[in-house]
Amino acid sequence: MSTITPAENLEADHRVKAVFDDIRATRKSDFINNMWLYLAFDPALLERTWAEVKTVMATPSTLDPVIKEMLYIAVSVTNGCSYCVHSHTAAAKAKGMTDAQYAELLSIISLAGKTNQLALGLQVPVDSAFDADAAKP
Amino acid sequence: MSTITPAENLEADHRVKAVFDDIRATRKSDFINNMWLYLAFDPALLERTWAEVKTVMATPSTLDPVIKEMLYIAVSVTNGCSYCVHSHTAAAKAKGMTDAQYAELLSIISLAGKTNQLALGLQVPVDSAFDADAAKP
Amino acid sequence: MSTITPAENLEADHRVKAVFDDIRATRKSDFINNMWLYLAFDPALLERTWAEVKTVMATPSTLDPVIKEMLYIAVSVTNGCSYCVHSHTAAAKAKGMTDAQYAELLSIISLAGKTNQLALGLQVPVDSAFDADAAKP
Amino acid sequence: MSTITPAENLEADHRVKAVFDDIRATRKSDFINNMWLYLAFDPALLERTWAEVKTVMATPSTLDPVIKEMLYIAVSVTNGCSYCVHSHTAAAKAKGMTDAQYAELLSIISLAGKTNQLALGLQVPVDSAFDADAAKP
Amino acid sequence: MSTITPAENLEADHRVKAVFDDIRATRKSDFINNMWLYLAFDPALLERTWAEVKTVMATPSTLDPVIKEMLYIAVSVTNGCSYCVHSHTAAAKAKGMTDAQYAELLSIISLAGKTNQLALGLQVPVDSAFDADAAKP
Amino acid sequence: MSTITPAENLEADHRVKAVFDDIRATRKSDFINNMWLYLAFDPALLERTWAEVKTVMATPSTLDPVIKEMLYIAVSVTNGCSYCVHSHTAAAKAKGMTDAQYAELLSIISLAGKTNQLALGLQVPVDSAFDADAAKP
Repeated sequence: MSTITPAENLEADHRVKAVFDDIRATRKSDFINNMWLYLAFDPALLERTWAEVKTVMATPSTLDPVIKEMLYIAVSVTNGCSYCVHSHTAAAKAKGMTDAQYAELLSIISLAGKTNQLALGLQVPVDSAFDADAAKP
Repeated sequence: MSTITPAENLEADHRVKAVFDDIRATRKSDFINNMWLYLAFDPALLERTWAEVKTVMATPSTLDPVIKEMLYIAVSVTNGCSYCVHSHTAAAKAKGMTDAQYAELLSIISLAGKTNQLALGLQVPVDSAFDADAAKP
Repeated sequence: MSTITPAENLEADHRVKAVFDDIRATRKSDFINNMWLYLAFDPALLERTWAEVKTVMATPSTLDPVIKEMLYIAVSVTNGCSYCVHSHTAAAKAKGMTDAQYAELLSIISLAGKTNQLALGLQVPVDSAFDADAAKP
Repeated sequence: MSTITPAENLEADHRVKAVFDDIRATRKSDFINNMWLYLAFDPALLERTWAEVKTVMATPSTLDPVIKEMLYIAVSVTNGCSYCVHSHTAAAKAKGMTDAQYAELLSIISLAGKTNQLALGLQVPVDSAFDADAAKP
Repeated sequence: MSTITPAENLEADHRVKAVFDDIRATRKSDFINNMWLYLAFDPALLERTWAEVKTVMATPSTLDPVIKEMLYIAVSVTNGCSYCVHSHTAAAKAKGMTDAQYAELLSIISLAGKTNQLALGLQVPVDSAFDADAAKP
Repeated sequence: MSTITPAENLEADHRVKAVFDDIRATRKSDFINNMWLYLAFDPALLERTWAEVKTVMATPSTLDPVIKEMLYIAVSVTNGCSYCVHSHTAAAKAKGMTDAQYAELLSIISLAGKTNQLALGLQVPVDSAFDADAAKP
């Protein structure tokens, strides 16, 4: 059950088709997951979102692709986004996340959830040593 | 301004002193940040929390210490925990996070914040391909 | 699957019946959605909640009814409340939200989700120009 | 720094004065905390909010006043509302919350923060035994 | 649909079996709910989590067991954790939460959700009277 | 206190200068608020973020500029982003949001915060009438 129903022939829109073609080429797979099928109701939003995902997630950078997916999972879990948790956990596994790394990921994000509550509950004041300016000579 | 005021001579409590000594030994530093000073009002909570942080964050594992801090930051930002964002960003930098990695971290967690909203707004149904059971032979 | 099961003959309770009658009269429809059927387990909570919804959402005011529903959606998406996203998106459409407006709503709330993460990640200090007092002569 | 500045003579508005008088009478104290001073910019919103707070929090009921404040703290911490954490922790203490109870509150809400992340990360399916309907004869 | 599939013979792992045996003994029931079946994929995480849950939730303390479950519900609702809301509401009922108490719980956590939004929207400054230090002689 | 310190001569970087010039031209004002000064530490992130903000927020569209800012506020309040609440409330006022509209905005987002908690607490099932597919002929 969703808030919109994707049109039957989404790729009849050339802007949608161009994005889908680029998704397939970038991922070397014919599979287009629901996120993109649903976003296609607005070609401009689809284009902007895919362009950013491609730039941030699919371009070689200083972080390993598996690590990027793990960071994505951390945010998605904290926001309670079921779709995002499923899709990025699947992506992390496809990119090589091991069971041990997954267990560690869950250990860290659950610990962070715990200590976040403690710091917010106590309203712990930020140490001046953590101030970026303080580190300056 | 906080919800409690740490006692003046926290280490007069031997359980608190034992934890603080272990924090100093583990981190090879005399600095005890406010989180622990405030948690010390309840020695049992302090002990449990530090034991878990030490196990999860300060024990060699499958993830690099910098990556662990970045995952911690991702959750803390999403929960809006100012103290935690400051302390773990400082820790990540101390452990070697580069400016380029930090920029990438922010790029990923802000993109995740964006696409989380899109998936939740559209209530995109989870693809069956993302089902853990589906991957089984 | 829910945490309670609505009684079979909810309107046998005259307080529940009075609220349901008012919902039907206000909306000019016989349909009572699940939110009210489930809240009916506590007539006082049902009365208070409906009274506030009626005052805030169903009374002519400075904001257009469609805009009010869009604001409701913005909060519900951010809180990850699936029921609320579905019900208020349906309401917004019923009150005239166009596809173009819906695409824009999603563009804005996802952009806000993104920049919220950036501001929280960087812990950007509030500009003094944004202080309400600063605007005073 | 706030988004509005309270007027200097708030009680010149008779609706505001009536609410403030009732707050003072209900709490048997002359102190009006900032929440009400800021809400006074809109007398209708002030009236509705105070009426609900008085009904829910200041009327004898099945839950102890200290417990009510602790529940309020649990939500406020999770939402990261600094003002609310401060005001309701002060209220809980004023109503008799002991240090041991406060430590336990923090232990529970931080544990919940942790296991929430685990359940959301693993997307654990709800046991059918937890279905309200399942409990029916 | 979940991110992992529990192994068929989980208790073949002696660490998992030891935790499950302790859960059954502590709860005086043969029922092991899904949370533990799914966490069992990582015995260390399972052990740590159960040990903390047992200490915090199943040990006699200053708070009534029903109250503890209600606090757990408050956090779980605010985090939008469906599994946790279901499991802890079932637990609260099993431990004696009455319908009247449940209605009150919902009244309080929904009111807190409302006033949290107001305080965050107005960015109400914390009263100095709420400062823990201010209470000192 | 922030996690980074903006460089002193940010506009020495030509990419930063180009974005800042465009911000000034778009807004017809010399004022550059902190968000952009802090994002400038990574010119690529600055460029991407400003491009999206300009497209979504500063381009004539189906929604009034004041309404767009109100939607932004709704998300920012729910995420507890203090910076964002301040900056977008100031922007909404500058673009003509009246006191009455602001009071209504707060009334709606606080009511949504309340009913979100109720729907999540009760785990109310989504009515089939709210299914986008159900509306199809």
